[in-house]
Amino acid sequence: MNNMQRTHYCGQLTEDIIGQTVTLQGWVQKRRDLGGLIFIDLRDRAGIVQIVFNPDFSKEALEIAESIRSEFVIEVQGKVVEREEKQKNDKLQTGSIEIHVENIKIINEAKTPPFIIEDETDVNEEIRLKYRYLDLRRPQLARVFKMRSDITKTVRNFLDDEGFLEVETPILTKSTPEGARDYLVPSRVNDGEFYALPQSPQLFKQMLMVSGFDRYYQIARCFRDEDLRADRQPEFTQIDMEMSFMSIEDIIELNERLMKKVMKDVKGIDIEIPFDRLPYDEAMARFGSDKPDTRFGMELQDLSEIVKDSSFKVFAGAVESGGQVKAINVIGAADNYSRKDIDALGEFAGRYGAKGLAWLKVDAEGLKGPIAKFFEGETADALINALQAEAGDLLLFVADKKSVVADALGALRLKLAKDLNLIDETQFNFLWVTDWPLFEFSEEDGRYYAAHHPFTMPANVDELESNPSSVKAQAYDLVLNGYELGGGSLRIYKRDIQEKMFKALGFTEEQAREQFGFLLDAFDYGTPPHGGIAFGLDRIVMLLSGSTNLRDTIAFPKTASASDLLTEAPSTVDAAQLTELGISIQSK
Amino acid sequence: MNNMQRTHYCGQLTEDIIGQTVTLQGWVQKRRDLGGLIFIDLRDRAGIVQIVFNPDFSKEALEIAESIRSEFVIEVQGKVVEREEKQKNDKLQTGSIEIHVENIKIINEAKTPPFIIEDETDVNEEIRLKYRYLDLRRPQLARVFKMRSDITKTVRNFLDDEGFLEVETPILTKSTPEGARDYLVPSRVNDGEFYALPQSPQLFKQMLMVSGFDRYYQIARCFRDEDLRADRQPEFTQIDMEMSFMSIEDIIELNERLMKKVMKDVKGIDIEIPFDRLPYDEAMARFGSDKPDTRFGMELQDLSEIVKDSSFKVFAGAVESGGQVKAINVIGAADNYSRKDIDALGEFAGRYGAKGLAWLKVDAEGLKGPIAKFFEGETADALINALQAEAGDLLLFVADKKSVVADALGALRLKLAKDLNLIDETQFNFLWVTDWPLFEFSEEDGRYYAAHHPFTMPANVDELESNPSSVKAQAYDLVLNGYELGGGSLRIYKRDIQEKMFKALGFTEEQAREQFGFLLDAFDYGTPPHGGIAFGLDRIVMLLSGSTNLRDTIAFPKTASASDLLTEAPSTVDAAQLTELGISIQSK
Repeated sequence: MNNMQRTHYCGQLTEDIIGQTVTLQGWVQKRRDLGGLIFIDLRDRAGIVQIVFNPDFSKEALEIAESIRSEFVIEVQGKVVEREEKQKNDKLQTGSIEIHVENIKIINEAKTPPFIIEDETDVNEEIRLKYRYLDLRRPQLARVFKMRSDITKTVRNFLDDEGFLEVETPILTKSTPEGARDYLVPSRVNDGEFYALPQSPQLFKQMLMVSGFDRYYQIARCFRDEDLRADRQPEFTQIDMEMSFMSIEDIIELNERLMKKVMKDVKGIDIEIPFDRLPYDEAMARFGSDKPDTRFGMELQDLSEIVKDSSFKVFAGAVESGGQVKAINVIGAADNYSRKDIDALGEFAGRYGAKGLAWLKVDAEGLKGPIAKFFEGETADALINALQAEAGDLLLFVADKKSVVADALGALRLKLAKDLNLIDETQFNFLWVTDWPLFEFSEEDGRYYAAHHPFTMPANVDELESNPSSVKAQAYDLVLNGYELGGGSLRIYKRDIQEKMFKALGFTEEQAREQFGFLLDAFDYGTPPHGGIAFGLDRIVMLLSGSTNLRDTIAFPKTASASDLLTEAPSTVDAAQLTELGISIQSK
Repeated sequence: MNNMQRTHYCGQLTEDIIGQTVTLQGWVQKRRDLGGLIFIDLRDRAGIVQIVFNPDFSKEALEIAESIRSEFVIEVQGKVVEREEKQKNDKLQTGSIEIHVENIKIINEAKTPPFIIEDETDVNEEIRLKYRYLDLRRPQLARVFKMRSDITKTVRNFLDDEGFLEVETPILTKSTPEGARDYLVPSRVNDGEFYALPQSPQLFKQMLMVSGFDRYYQIARCFRDEDLRADRQPEFTQIDMEMSFMSIEDIIELNERLMKKVMKDVKGIDIEIPFDRLPYDEAMARFGSDKPDTRFGMELQDLSEIVKDSSFKVFAGAVESGGQVKAINVIGAADNYSRKDIDALGEFAGRYGAKGLAWLKVDAEGLKGPIAKFFEGETADALINALQAEAGDLLLFVADKKSVVADALGALRLKLAKDLNLIDETQFNFLWVTDWPLFEFSEEDGRYYAAHHPFTMPANVDELESNPSSVKAQAYDLVLNGYELGGGSLRIYKRDIQEKMFKALGFTEEQAREQFGFLLDAFDYGTPPHGGIAFGLDRIVMLLSGSTNLRDTIAFPKTASASDLLTEAPSTVDAAQLTELGISIQSK
């Protein structure tokens, strides 16, 4: 059953080769029978071409074509012919030609697939994932994976040109409880011991800097055993890099050029560099988010000073107890939102902890609404002024402690922009968020955690012990259209600072030694200053391909319960396998 | 503590920039004090340059230099100056210049390292692995990782140009007991279930072919929980590819061009394509190996016909009971091997199952040695003729069943070639081994196993049931200098053949369904003919870099007991982690 060599991909055929005989191999997208002829749309990776069976070209081929159904794999030979003018199809890349088939061979047959192989599908995602090999035939998905391949190619070539060395780091590595939950792998050889799958190559890439590799990169698989959300997967891919002797400015500049190149090569879009930058505190204050979408305004305005003495106790009380009153101006939206609509917004804000959502509408005469009576005269003018409000605007207020105000108004801002179609979807707004806090305090555990990771260089080392909550990190995140693309930092490269850091995180000396002894030791032997960054490749692909779902960017993704519906992983294993590993299953 | 921007790598400085002021950052390789001056060899990724401290250039810098020791990280500024003629050092890339230092900053200090950072080291490997970050500073190792990065770059660019799409496949996947032992990962969400780390992306890449991706590749991490030998690691990297609608000839041709390009780009060597090919049976017959080193002769000669009626019972008996008598001619080695030496060779052959090693020496008068008396006249002539023996040659015989003869003489052949220095180490002999048996019969288990894997297309499907041991696989291995670089095959793409295959391997229908149901189902929906190949990247790097140890090609390798001595993985974990996973440790 030797096949002929394919001469062209279906989707690549053009008018340039009219008159030539071609050999094509592909899948039957659609068959139409018309006046004794058969027309088939033949599909391969590159696209679709129409092939025609006609007794004048070959009776035998026509007869075989009669038995063909959708998704059969066939091979045809035939002549490339220009279509009659009125038959030309502008929507199809190959729409001005067709193939007159002289020979056909059925290479493999196909049952009727459980869903139609087309871009538009309403079949539920479980079925698509179970038959992922059919789902991936949809041209829309195939395009995403072409783009993914193109993005990594551009990244690799860029970093290679910049002198980065690609180095692979281990997947079977050591568990470090600091951070997200690890996936564990029992060791068969070392009784009672476990490997962990890496949450990132962080410490290995730092070791490479100690080794003098100077510039490292890797498209690295990482793992986190967390409860999954729509934009999380148990395994994900990072564009991971680390470099020595470079300042934050150097690192930011290099990565801006990288992103510019990716956007140009993959999307054909010229973006401006340098990107805007926002200190973390300002991002939180103006957008209520550490990854603001800056494609639209509707910024948060702090009105605490204006309302702190007002007779509206909710506002005055919030300020008095150390909180804030902030608002957003939903321009021109006063008439779009009924009282009921606003109640729904209040409920939405409640999910972010807000106890209520106050509102005012603006008309020619001033503020309107149930709480308007509390704000009159100068206070009303000050509010209108601060919010740059005009007749027809809707003003939404949250009064609460600082973090709740930011979360609730930040989320409302995003929701309203989507609802009101305020976002220019063709825009790509890259933004650096800088000057992060080094620590987060967990009220639950009564201790500090590293906001990024424990290896981030503090901006002010002196206050590590005296005033940890004020210490900033030499860290930076890159944000695109409201999504965190990735983040990085300069790293600690002196032993004494790293020891102080572990201490601030509540490690005993022994704990620090046990978990990170090799890192501390490495600092004793000539460690250069270094820093790096890691980007989420899956998310970049999602944003650049306009996908709405991280799963559409991963060839064989897992569901929210971390299952692969195609292979049915995870699965039970033989008892003998567990015995060899020296583990047993416990009821929880 | 801002650093200056580096202007050059140390190792890249040339006479072209004499007179310029440069800023360098690197490690102190060596310090010499001489007549009030200090000379330091400064090292970075690119190499070494000599920097000179002289009170005439800067008193202050000289004073600081006095405190500097090996492996300190420093930054210097200074002028590039031509060395005096007699001071020039041809052995050093930068040996015709030196830097006259005007400014120096100590960036980080260093304790005396546990071993000297030089190519030649006699420190034991455990110490090197524990301090891997120092070991990787040795220029020899740094060169290997540069080559590794270059090889993957060449491979990627080549495959990309050939229309291959890079696709990532899962690391958390399903356990399939057929094959090597899996590493397992307990699932926290799905009680009592486990993921397995992939031994290869085999089934996923086949699924991509079903999806019409047409040409796939990946530099893929793979895992096998096997007892380790010198050339095995628990995790290793494959250059993995799969393609549709291609014949064995197409696949071989493409991969020959790939290897030619790698050899040219990375080693600067032009190799001839097409490569030689040997059917498996012939490789075993002539070289006693399925991955023969063809850089030298000393082929195995079958003498069974000549000696079957001889009075030497060992030989005659072996043939009579269905075995063989074969020999190698160690040309001109008769005088090099005493009786005691030959006894040692016999002991070596014994490790491969040979019950004895018979020998003859040839001198001007004919055969000599204890068994010469059994072979006289025509038989002696026939032996001499068959082995093309001449005076001074040593003939070594093994009489046993076929597999033992091949193993023992094949191993002896390699050992003798090394001992006698018969191998031209500058040669790169690529060789395809083809026409593999589809099955191996396990006497222990009383069943057939797939010689490659159960998805390999048989050459003669008809005999799958009637005569499995005679069925050949449409498989091919690429061998370089006696090492298997990789292997591949055409795959089964019809459901009925795959079902027959599983049956031949002793699977019940239910077992086949449970483990490979998704594969069988996929064959129902239009699967194209496809095939592929996978190469061991670590091994390619080892052979091309002239390393003698697979660990030297992996940045952070594991020991024979699968431990990482740097991070001390695997390790014990918190009881809470195990509880969450629903597993407990059992004593074995």
